[in-house]
Amino acid sequence: MRILGIDPGLERIGYGAVRREGSRLTAEEYGLIQTPRIELPERLALVRREVTQLLERVRPDAVATEQLLFSVNRKTAMDVAKSLGVILCAVAEHGAPWTEFAPGAVKLSVVGNGGAEKKQVQFMVTRLLGLAETPKPDDVADALALAVCLALRSRPGA
Amino acid sequence: MRILGIDPGLERIGYGAVRREGSRLTAEEYGLIQTPRIELPERLALVRREVTQLLERVRPDAVATEQLLFSVNRKTAMDVAKSLGVILCAVAEHGAPWTEFAPGAVKLSVVGNGGAEKKQVQFMVTRLLGLAETPKPDDVADALALAVCLALRSRPGA
Repeated sequence: MRILGIDPGLERIGYGAVRREGSRLTAEEYGLIQTPRIELPERLALVRREVTQLLERVRPDAVATEQLLFSVNRKTAMDVAKSLGVILCAVAEHGAPWTEFAPGAVKLSVVGNGGAEKKQVQFMVTRLLGLAETPKPDDVADALALAVCLALRSRPGA
Repeated sequence: MRILGIDPGLERIGYGAVRREGSRLTAEEYGLIQTPRIELPERLALVRREVTQLLERVRPDAVATEQLLFSVNRKTAMDVAKSLGVILCAVAEHGAPWTEFAPGAVKLSVVGNGGAEKKQVQFMVTRLLGLAETPKPDDVADALALAVCLALRSRPGA
């Protein structure tokens, strides 16, 4: 089973694909989609093309995104929401089932503590996936954490 | 010149197409796209299909949307932003130039007063377009007001 975690954004979208075989988790591919500061509709169309290509390449059986919380910067929150709309549309057109997690739910599944610090989450994700070092930047680590969270929750018997 | 105004939403999207010939404005088509309460990604994919069909039917030379303001209901604001992201992506893929207006800018262009009441805007839109009565519901009237605003501003010599 292949699970894709996506950390939404307009300027930077983190993604991480995790393969689950039995109880073993491996990172298949992870990285960052970045968009230049072009006009908003063209930028969103670029997000769509890039995410569609990602879905066609990874062919995930399930997709997880993080629930958007209201940031202090409202303008940023609205732009991230516009991009997330385009991402979810692409996910539906690809046909993969979608799960949304609150940040606390990811921490709870990965670390066992809903109030865990980001570093603890990154440490556990790196360890569970058997990676030599923590993926950078945070957008990528967050996307992998989402994929690990969904992988752990969808494990047979979990 | 054909101008399409779109009043974004997740549950209801108002649209209005206005034709400008010289200084004469006529309403070509207006109405509401509505989506049922299905899962969010599928709902956004439906928005994309419906808006793409609308763009292919109307073939606008320009598209206007209203700038999203932060509503009291944050959840609603975020859902509207997700839908707007999908709408703008479809507009870019259609290739029409896009303009965004703040609510006050529409009032100023249509009524001559940035603080005008909604009823005054609707009265002027109905009159400028030579319609027998004010289009209902408000989402449709708002979309026509956006199209009229862009038509007035893009008039030669305006």
